[in-house]
Order: sequence, then structure tokens, then C-alpha cells
Amino acid sequence: MLSVDSVQSLKRDEGIEVVWENESRARFHAVWLRDHAPDKDTLAPGNGQRLIRVQDIPADVRIEAVSRKDDGKISVTFGPENKTVAFDADWLWANRYDRPELASRAPGWTRKEVVRWGSELEPELPVESFEKAREQGVELYRWLRDVDRYGVAKMVDMPVESGAICQVVDLFGFVRETNYGRYFEVRTEVNPVNLAYTGLGLQVHTDNPYRDPVPTLQLLSCLDNSVEGGDSVVVDAFKAVEVLREEAPQKFDLLAGYPACYTYAGAADVYLASKRPMIELGPDGELKAVRFNNRSIGPLTEIPFDKMAAYYDAYRHLAEIVERAELQVTFKLKPGELFIVDNTRVLHGRVAYEGSGSRWLQGCYADTDSLRSKLATLHQEWG
Amino acid sequence: MLSVDSVQSLKRDEGIEVVWENESRARFHAVWLRDHAPDKDTLAPGNGQRLIRVQDIPADVRIEAVSRKDDGKISVTFGPENKTVAFDADWLWANRYDRPELASRAPGWTRKEVVRWGSELEPELPVESFEKAREQGVELYRWLRDVDRYGVAKMVDMPVESGAICQVVDLFGFVRETNYGRYFEVRTEVNPVNLAYTGLGLQVHTDNPYRDPVPTLQLLSCLDNSVEGGDSVVVDAFKAVEVLREEAPQKFDLLAGYPACYTYAGAADVYLASKRPMIELGPDGELKAVRFNNRSIGPLTEIPFDKMAAYYDAYRHLAEIVERAELQVTFKLKPGELFIVDNTRVLHGRVAYEGSGSRWLQGCYADTDSLRSKLATLHQEWG
Repeated sequence: MLSVDSVQSLKRDEGIEVVWENESRARFHAVWLRDHAPDKDTLAPGNGQRLIRVQDIPADVRIEAVSRKDDGKISVTFGPENKTVAFDADWLWANRYDRPELASRAPGWTRKEVVRWGSELEPELPVESFEKAREQGVELYRWLRDVDRYGVAKMVDMPVESGAICQVVDLFGFVRETNYGRYFEVRTEVNPVNLAYTGLGLQVHTDNPYRDPVPTLQLLSCLDNSVEGGDSVVVDAFKAVEVLREEAPQKFDLLAGYPACYTYAGAADVYLASKRPMIELGPDGELKAVRFNNRSIGPLTEIPFDKMAAYYDAYRHLAEIVERAELQVTFKLKPGELFIVDNTRVLHGRVAYEGSGSRWLQGCYADTDSLRSKLATLHQEWG
Repeated sequence: MLSVDSVQSLKRDEGIEVVWENESRARFHAVWLRDHAPDKDTLAPGNGQRLIRVQDIPADVRIEAVSRKDDGKISVTFGPENKTVAFDADWLWANRYDRPELASRAPGWTRKEVVRWGSELEPELPVESFEKAREQGVELYRWLRDVDRYGVAKMVDMPVESGAICQVVDLFGFVRETNYGRYFEVRTEVNPVNLAYTGLGLQVHTDNPYRDPVPTLQLLSCLDNSVEGGDSVVVDAFKAVEVLREEAPQKFDLLAGYPACYTYAGAADVYLASKRPMIELGPDGELKAVRFNNRSIGPLTEIPFDKMAAYYDAYRHLAEIVERAELQVTFKLKPGELFIVDNTRVLHGRVAYEGSGSRWLQGCYADTDSLRSKLATLHQEWG
């Protein structure tokens, strides 16, 4: 609870200025306050959805009066409607937008929850027991928080049975079904439709960049892994592009500034293609996603001729960074173990395998919106 | 088939220049050609995936020799590997990137398949019979092509039974399950978790902008619609933002230049939030998506204070445009009818309804990547 010291109208009644007890201050526009007014005619009680359109707000909306009430709320009277509404001081604090830092962030910044990592994460890779997580308590809360924070986590003590991977998705969200199925087999096949279904090593990558929207979560569970090799490798691509920007900012700009193309046509009835940058930034420079996959990139047709040589230099540089030992975390999944990655952020790959024994993984896609929703609701209890 | 007139090396052997019989010419870099070389050691036979990493290409890759072969293919020898590969002339033509127009497109341009529309589409709204479409022939091809082109289409002759909507998704892709279920009921409810489940009119909108990734397709099917009112309205938001850009380019830039925020917390165990711009452009200015939804926008916390008033003016202007009669297509769904929209492009809404009778729709989400994949495979037969 942060209480308000004082409030006053701005000049020409275009908004208000609030000063909190911690001496922070923030201004709010009349139109913004009116649009977010927490009264039953603006926001539906129960579901909180807005009942008015933006054009239902008078174009000449203004502040008629503003004051701090005895209960600490901020009372605002809007003209010309002559409508009075009370705002929570905490809510105003949490949603203030009069923050100079909004205009000064460097391209590639991330939400505060994101912790970038390198190989130092290896001994501390987040891990939880499926038996504990399914209780829907603090263990699941911490596991989801770690997925949100690091973009990767392991789960152990899973049933060693085909399809159990979907039970992990059920803990927080919904399977994203694709042409590969609700879940898919990752093991050596004759005539594989995807190089994942061979014993070849796979350079670290994000999955399915040729899909749009890309699946934002990938899970890989282990049913058998008695081969020599076949270790899993994960790399924080948000860290990798930060390193790229430090070493060569103009290369970061190239990979963010032009769209790559990705295609998959490995089976007769599938032709997937997308056009998105390797480094995707929001309009405010926030790092939203990385797409990196040597198997499915190209043909690159959307980069101007005079940028192509430099673009390839940048791509090569990033490809070298993601293979540096100091960025890689390696582990070997055992039967009954699984790892999950944020597929917009964390690359995964594997060491080649061969010889006797067998390796049988299953994969599955899901999406982060449901994961973060579950995390937010568990946070109310355990945060 | 477009055959090649001549080929030659560029200076310093950094690439080649191809001249086709239509006198068009295009240059290709050595590194680009090497990365896309269609030989069995570069691209896996069968699934077409790339077997090499970009750093497996020598940094000093160059053209040792280039010539037109008797079969019309272009033979390229790469140094220092001394590797010779033959490229199809057609493939080079289709994938040439030496195109000056890449650098000169105005913000908000779209793929060539996209046809923007206004109310003139109403009498010509694409429609197909479910019975015909399920034959997986030319009718399905044309219907999917129309969805890709206009972002909206109707389907008729559906079974009037609960859940039949999923059979339409099965024609081309996969249901995107969400907290609303695999499909969901759209009818008047007591204590609705969403204003869609009331008799209120709904301003045209894209669905679930608070989800990330947003569902890229939405379907709505009709089981009963005997009320007064309840007509469906669709608007091409790609057209609407084009109008906005013509009338006020700086407003287009504001809505594309700053992220909006969207939230949904209508049920106890759901808290969805996203941060994406109303007008989403790729780094090359391509119009990728529009998010517009008065019910779930805000709190807007990511727009700097000194831009907020202008941002609201721009939002208000766009909200007025999408309600102009010349942009709206209206129809009333009958039982056994459905419409599909590209939820990144086409807004949908409804006129309020009340009185006797009832209105029962079902909704379902899916994704465009599978739809376009299906379209591409049907195109080979019917295009």
C-alpha cells in the first residue's frame, strides 16, 4: 500500500498530477483516466471488460475536480459528463506511465522477470518433481516462475509412458497441436521427414520458425536414452543476442532490421513458410523473440542485395556465439525426465549419438500465455 | 519456365549475375548461393532440411567458375572448397533478392495475396458448402484461397449440431485450445465471464488480443439465431489502417510505434496480459497484424506521457474509421452457417439483440500457418 500525499489538476484541466508518500510523482491524462474509470458503467462488474468505446468518451473530456478522499482513494470528476469516479492510489501507482525511462531503453531490453544466463546455470538448472508439481501448489508456482525467468526448466519423476508429456502441459495450459501431432516421436527413423528424427547432432535452434505463430513453448520428454551421446544442450538466445550487440551492435541491428525466411516441406502434404526477423523487437525496442534454425532458414529473399553480405556476417557471428562453451548448458535426459523451453528465447540442440542402445524422446508444443496466466493466479497464493 | 540468357562472375568473385531471357537481371552473393546449394551434402534429400551450419561455409567463400549448362541449369563452382553445384534457373528467378523495390515500400504494405476490401465485398462475400469443401478438392482450395485473400469467408450446409465447428477446422488445420475450451458457447449467460456472452452489441474487434501469441483464425458457427438483431459485422482492419494512414500518417505511426496493453481477468483462474502494438509492422514495414478491442485494452502503461494524448487521438480516429458504413460488411448467420476470420486482420462484431427467440453461436480458434500450408498443397493440384 502506497498512499498519496497530494493531487492536483494540470494546467488547462487536461489531467492530474499525483504525488505519493515516497515523493514520486506522475501525471495522468483526463482521457486515459476516463477510459480506465473503474465504475460499473465503464468496466463491467464481474469480468472487468470495458463497456464503452473510445469514441464514447467526449473529445473535450477534462478534469472538473480532483481530491484525495478520506479512504485514500483519488476522486476525479470528469467534464463535460460531470461524472465522478474514485481511483485506488495503488492502482494508479502500478499503472503510471509518466516514466522517463520509457523513452531511454536500449534496443534488446527485456521484461524485468527475465534473467539472462550462460553456462553458470548448469549446476542450478531449475528442476521439479512431477509428483510435487501436480499438487498445484508452491512447487508448481516456483517451477512456472523459473520457466518465466530463465526460459528453461527440467521436470523429473514423470511416468515413463508414451504421451505422459501432455500431462505436464495440463498442469498449466493447452497443447498446441500441429502437423507433427499433439505430441511427436523424436527417434531415429528410416526416411525421416525431419532431421530431428535421425542420430545426427543438431545445432542449437528454436523449433518451427517456419510456423507463424511459432509455438512459444516446447517440451521434450525422455522414455529411453541408453545410447552413447545424445546429450541435450540449451542456450539462452536472449543472452546470445546481448553478447552480439556488445561485440558488434551493427550486426544486432541487421538481424533485427530485416526479416529472415523459414520453410519446411519435409512431408508431401505440408508446406510451411514464414517471414520474421531472427531478432524480433517490439516498437519500443523490447526483445520479443529470437528465431534461429540452420535447418530451415531460407531462401532469404527479403534482405536487399546491398545488405546481404553484412547480414550473413551477422548471422555467422551469432551462430558462433551460440556455440561458445560459456553460453551452453548441457545435460543428458534420463527416462522419466523432461525439459521445457521458451521457444521464443531458449535454443536447444543435441550431441550426435550412435552405437548400441536406443534414444526415444517425445516432443510437444504449448504456449506461454496460458503458462503466465497460471503463474499469475498461483502468484496470488504463493508469491 | 524462364531460361537464362547469360551468367557471369561479379568482381572479386563475390557472387554472380544472372540475365534471364526476359532481360531481367539479378545478382547473387557467393555465400547465399553456397548456403542454399541444392546438393545432398547441403540439403537433405527427402525432407530438404539443411545439413550444414552457416559457419561450415568458409568465410572466404568465392565463385571459382560459373556457366550455363546445356540443360539450362546454372553450374557454380565454389572456392576454396572446389565444390560444384547446379542451380535451377527458375528457382533462382523465384528467389532473387536483388530487387530495388525491397527498399522502397511504404509502411503498411502487404503480401501480394492480400486484397483489401470495404462494404463492396458484401454481395460477394466468399461462401462455400461444407459438403463440397469436405471433398478436399477445388472447392476447398478456392475457399482457403479466399480466406487468405480477403481474411474472411462463410461456410454453409454445416451440420446443425454442437461441436460441428471443429469439423471445419479439421479441413485445413488444428484447433487452438484455450481457457475457453476447444470450442466455446456464445450466448446470453447469467454472470458472464465475457461480454460476448450477453445480448450487448459488440464493437468490431479482434479476439483475444490479451493472448500472445494471439489465435490467428477465429470461426463462429450458428446453431440458432431467431432473435431480433444479432447481425454479424466484419471489417477489414488492413483497409482501415490504410485509410488512417491516408488521412493522418502520423496517427498510423503512433499506433504502430508504441505498444498497447491488453488484459483479461474475467474468470477467477485466468489472468491473461499482452503488450503488442495496435498496428504491428515487420522490420521492413510489412503490415503483419492489427489488434483492436475496446473491451480488453489497457491499462496503457507503455506509451510515454508526452505521446499519450496524441496516441488516444489516433486510437479514436481508427475507432471511428472501423465504424464507417463503407468499411462494414453485415450479414445474419443462419443455423448451419459459419464464418471464419483472419484474427490478425479482420475485425468482427455484432449488433445488439433482445426480445423473444434465442441466439446460439459457437466459437473456435485455429492458426493460419496450417491453413496456408493446406492451401499451398492444394494449389499444386488446383492452382
